[in-house]
Amino acid sequence: MDRRSFIRAGALGAGAAALAAPAVAQDKITWRMVTTWPKNFPGLGVGAQRLADRITAASGGRLTIQVYSAGELVPPLQSLDAVIDGSAEMSHSAAYYWQNKSDALNFFTGVPYGMTSAELAGWMRHMGGQELWDEVYDQFGVQGFLSGNTGIQAGGWFRDEINSLEDLKGLRFRTPGLGGRVWEKLGVTATNMAAGEIFQALQSGTLDAAEFVGPYNDLALGFHQVAKNYYFPSFVEPGLATELVVDKAKYQALPEDLQAIVRDVSQAEYDQVGSEFAANDPRALKTLVEEHGVNMRQFPDEVMKAGAEAAKEVLTSLRDNGDDLTKRTTESFLEALRLMRGKSEIAEGPFVRAREQYFDM
Amino acid sequence: MDRRSFIRAGALGAGAAALAAPAVAQDKITWRMVTTWPKNFPGLGVGAQRLADRITAASGGRLTIQVYSAGELVPPLQSLDAVIDGSAEMSHSAAYYWQNKSDALNFFTGVPYGMTSAELAGWMRHMGGQELWDEVYDQFGVQGFLSGNTGIQAGGWFRDEINSLEDLKGLRFRTPGLGGRVWEKLGVTATNMAAGEIFQALQSGTLDAAEFVGPYNDLALGFHQVAKNYYFPSFVEPGLATELVVDKAKYQALPEDLQAIVRDVSQAEYDQVGSEFAANDPRALKTLVEEHGVNMRQFPDEVMKAGAEAAKEVLTSLRDNGDDLTKRTTESFLEALRLMRGKSEIAEGPFVRAREQYFDM
Repeated sequence: MDRRSFIRAGALGAGAAALAAPAVAQDKITWRMVTTWPKNFPGLGVGAQRLADRITAASGGRLTIQVYSAGELVPPLQSLDAVIDGSAEMSHSAAYYWQNKSDALNFFTGVPYGMTSAELAGWMRHMGGQELWDEVYDQFGVQGFLSGNTGIQAGGWFRDEINSLEDLKGLRFRTPGLGGRVWEKLGVTATNMAAGEIFQALQSGTLDAAEFVGPYNDLALGFHQVAKNYYFPSFVEPGLATELVVDKAKYQALPEDLQAIVRDVSQAEYDQVGSEFAANDPRALKTLVEEHGVNMRQFPDEVMKAGAEAAKEVLTSLRDNGDDLTKRTTESFLEALRLMRGKSEIAEGPFVRAREQYFDM
Repeated sequence: MDRRSFIRAGALGAGAAALAAPAVAQDKITWRMVTTWPKNFPGLGVGAQRLADRITAASGGRLTIQVYSAGELVPPLQSLDAVIDGSAEMSHSAAYYWQNKSDALNFFTGVPYGMTSAELAGWMRHMGGQELWDEVYDQFGVQGFLSGNTGIQAGGWFRDEINSLEDLKGLRFRTPGLGGRVWEKLGVTATNMAAGEIFQALQSGTLDAAEFVGPYNDLALGFHQVAKNYYFPSFVEPGLATELVVDKAKYQALPEDLQAIVRDVSQAEYDQVGSEFAANDPRALKTLVEEHGVNMRQFPDEVMKAGAEAAKEVLTSLRDNGDDLTKRTTESFLEALRLMRGKSEIAEGPFVRAREQYFDM
């Protein structure tokens, strides 16, 4: 190559790079995702990382998401605030952690005697739920997307058997949030406690009982070593949805295809996380029963019934005493539930019952 | 600009265009999607169109999908063959329509007394179901993705009430596929018939009963005008999954980000279609009952029980008499179901039942 050719080639190369540069700069965005989950936390922490990786992959790296587990960038229960104050662009968490901002946020995660995972998706996507969520989060400049669901949770680990309402009186039970309020009405002393502290408290007798998520998560935490009675179902958490929250202005400034990818991958993860719990909760249950001698038990009918009365009191209080958005959200949620439970009760419920009774194969 | 600058700019411009051209050519792909659904068919035809539009949007038009409804490019029940023979790149349909290619394909849609929508996702994504499906479709050079689920279907429209097994004897009942085989064992004469012919056949008395999908689809077809007894649940179709099928070689030749988009959008649609049925089936049911005087009824226990026995016979026959892949698929499906129903029966089932009995709000 002579000198002139070399210079021309150089000029061309530089020119091409100069032309391409704005596109490259526009195309390569790196966002920080903070989460409330420990790294590799089954189902949820793993789900946050997978969601991030799927956005990165589907965008060909144009939108690359870096995940910071609980505490790595901000404390776990400041992940939404980190997006609001701009120290992160995304948060993977659960909306009910922010009920101090609005009680309406409980409904976008799950409430006592509320919706199953499938019903919640029906309300959120087709019956006005998402629009109410948007109204709440618009106040904070963020946009929420459903990003997973644990399915119905376990009722809790109890050292002693529960055969009546009387057996609940005075029990020190780790069960936070709205669920805790319901359980308090049944006579327990409800307390909250971080995941890592529960085992020790059960072992030392500081706690008589504890609920966390379900078999898949609980097995990893070892509760079966100190409490053998595992009760079902959790009527206070019939399905806990997780959220992906994004800085709304930055989201809207993305090219439309990247906006679509964030939305689509979040929805895919609603199924992915749900199906992982559908497969891994029963696997963990089998291990708990067959290898660790755990007793799977059902709450007595009178506990389920009293729980329903208590849930009605708690939801009535939200509807009657909440701010305007909480009132409207409660009403929309209950109206959608009244409609959808009709099909659950005439179709899904009787099918699962008949299969249980008659189909052994 | 002097002449030298002009030439340089021209050279630069041409150079940049030459560099960019291959990328542009590679970036714009148009694929044809054939479907088995009529245009705008509630839930499913609409879902096929939406899936196509979402791939187009998430890829920024780099992969543009053109949808051909049933009959537009090929007859509805040739949509898979159209992908196999190369006249289309994608098909939106249901795998059990192709059971003449392998009985194993029934399991990737739904079978009598089989899995709910959530359980099916658990098996397919986390317990080996997808891998078996891939083995079946590898023989035909195509790749399948779940792309929707109707949820549990309605049992059927019956002109007369069904109070016993005896009442089923000799009924001419439109119910196709494996479900039809189960119903035949209960004494009905099962027949198939295209959607557009059912109403007329019910009206004229050629049929005594018919099942199609569920309230959302059935309302549109007007069956309530000629049969007033609407029975639940469909124990032969506890959840019907739809599929997106793609020419495998062409899929694998796509850039990785476009492969991810096809996969992610299909999974998002599994939730989107399912949640649409969760919302719209109950809305349609309300209309059917309140405006059209339809009687919602439950099959008698002895019918549910006999149905379970018949389903066992049909599934046993598939397992024992099918080809190698059908045997392995049946065994994998049943093993996954035995595991997962444990949680459905101790958690979801009792929760829905307790909510029905105790939670009125």
